[in-house]
Amino acid sequence: MGKEIVLTGITTSGTPHLGNYVGAIRPAIEASQREDTESFFFLADYHALIKCQDPERVKQSRLEIAATWLACGLDTDKATFYRQSDIPEISELNWLLTCVTAKGLMNRAHAYKASVDDNVNKGQDPDYGITMGLFCYPVLMAADILAFNANKVPVGRDQIQHIEMARDIGSRFNHLFGEHFVMPEAVVADDDSAILKGLDGRKMSKSYNNTIPLFDTEKKLKKGINKIVTNLLEPGEPKDPNSSTVFDVYKAFATPEQTAEMHQKFLEGIAWGEAKKELFELVNSQLEEPREKYLELMANPAEIEAVLQAGAEKARARARALISDLRKAVGLVNFV
Amino acid sequence: MGKEIVLTGITTSGTPHLGNYVGAIRPAIEASQREDTESFFFLADYHALIKCQDPERVKQSRLEIAATWLACGLDTDKATFYRQSDIPEISELNWLLTCVTAKGLMNRAHAYKASVDDNVNKGQDPDYGITMGLFCYPVLMAADILAFNANKVPVGRDQIQHIEMARDIGSRFNHLFGEHFVMPEAVVADDDSAILKGLDGRKMSKSYNNTIPLFDTEKKLKKGINKIVTNLLEPGEPKDPNSSTVFDVYKAFATPEQTAEMHQKFLEGIAWGEAKKELFELVNSQLEEPREKYLELMANPAEIEAVLQAGAEKARARARALISDLRKAVGLVNFV
Repeated sequence: MGKEIVLTGITTSGTPHLGNYVGAIRPAIEASQREDTESFFFLADYHALIKCQDPERVKQSRLEIAATWLACGLDTDKATFYRQSDIPEISELNWLLTCVTAKGLMNRAHAYKASVDDNVNKGQDPDYGITMGLFCYPVLMAADILAFNANKVPVGRDQIQHIEMARDIGSRFNHLFGEHFVMPEAVVADDDSAILKGLDGRKMSKSYNNTIPLFDTEKKLKKGINKIVTNLLEPGEPKDPNSSTVFDVYKAFATPEQTAEMHQKFLEGIAWGEAKKELFELVNSQLEEPREKYLELMANPAEIEAVLQAGAEKARARARALISDLRKAVGLVNFV
Repeated sequence: MGKEIVLTGITTSGTPHLGNYVGAIRPAIEASQREDTESFFFLADYHALIKCQDPERVKQSRLEIAATWLACGLDTDKATFYRQSDIPEISELNWLLTCVTAKGLMNRAHAYKASVDDNVNKGQDPDYGITMGLFCYPVLMAADILAFNANKVPVGRDQIQHIEMARDIGSRFNHLFGEHFVMPEAVVADDDSAILKGLDGRKMSKSYNNTIPLFDTEKKLKKGINKIVTNLLEPGEPKDPNSSTVFDVYKAFATPEQTAEMHQKFLEGIAWGEAKKELFELVNSQLEEPREKYLELMANPAEIEAVLQAGAEKARARARALISDLRKAVGLVNFV
């Protein structure tokens, strides 16, 4: 009682990279170790179906992402870790919320509007190629959050609107049927710490194709780091740490002392090859153990399955109690 | 195997009247007794939430409607009778189908378009007061039908489009993920037999406020029948059976022989009072037993609950097998 509930949805698409680790995985796992919070983490596989019609990819990605978070140290005795699609209460709540959501609210969702604008610019029908999945997505997301009465939801800036919508939908339900939902708040990490630069100096992102994978082989990690774009300054020439991707990535893994030392080495003109070597050693030293754990888990999916099943049980027990109250509130009760 | 699956959704709002009995309840129950069909009947209580935010009304109406169908002789050993909201597989399928439904398809739904037109005529925002429940309704209805791979769905004319949409959505899923759904067909009763006239001679309907309740007291049934509007012809003056509501209602309950006799009596100038008396006696003789059964059931909701719970178990066993296949098809499988 009284603990703050933090709920984190994890997109199950693509292979996690260093940017995901630094910007999302590591801080979320750290935050879940706090004594004053109760953490829920879920694999958003129902959401994945909106964009992905390749069952093998859906399946593989869920497995890799689950293994990644477990390998990175998510403590599932403390946090509740589950697959969205294992919680029937979420799709049930999705319908209850659908009934109280104004269609006008969904019309204003950024992602939907962007697709419409795109169609209009191309002279297409405004809803060309748009599925109800895309259109209804914010209602399902509200169900994800409200099913556990989460207080805080860590999200990227592009998701803030969805949290506002969850509040809106939850308030509407409360207004009609009594106070059942607490109002969730978006937590947006400040940009400096959350965004890692990619190979080309832009934000590391799958969309820019500039990522370094998190749990590929040591050899590939080294190769990735060597591909980071640098300028043409020779060894011995002073280098500006603040405009260097190598330094940016180093800082994300280093202690303040290590960062200060590397800063000094940049000013003293460390060779790019040497800086990258030190970067690789630092990152690799931190990823060696989780990488091994990751490979172990990937070789033993039964272990992951057991963890997620146990997580689903914990999550369902919570959601079931709430849904039972909500059913009463709307009139869907048993006759005796 | 090989039996045709017929699925009937029952709106849970309002109190059933003679028109519902003649037009929907009696023929559906008769049809469910055929050996070559397997019948599913469900109380569409999730749909009820779209329009009704009064929990007491939702609850009471579900109870009355369930008692009505059971009292009218629905054989739940043979047919599967359940509440929509007791089948979590339906809301799960609802999401799977949402992901493959084109938004453009929903834009074209008659009920939605009518609401939009109404708003536009009033100078309002087109989506003013429209909920996502109304907008998404056809997807949920597709889930109701496809969850049991129903072959035939008896509906009113206004619902034909929704069956077409269910086919459309089911085909889309089949196209993307393999053949899982059979294509349901709408069954529309021919108008003559399905539409009973009300007190004022128009179709008997709650919206016209011209109904005679099905299971009110005998006294009120008599009073209702006495209120049927007739013309001013005196006893002894020949009357036209084909333009008379009294004859219309009589015919709906009579054998062909009884109908022929009454037809003759009309031509011979039966007094309106006498015709109404005979009508009351005919209808009452057929409703006496079910009325008693209805009152018994209403006094014993536990009996209704037990029947519906057993029905839900039967329905879920069927839906679960299908959903399990669908989950595999889209990639939502367990890891072992």
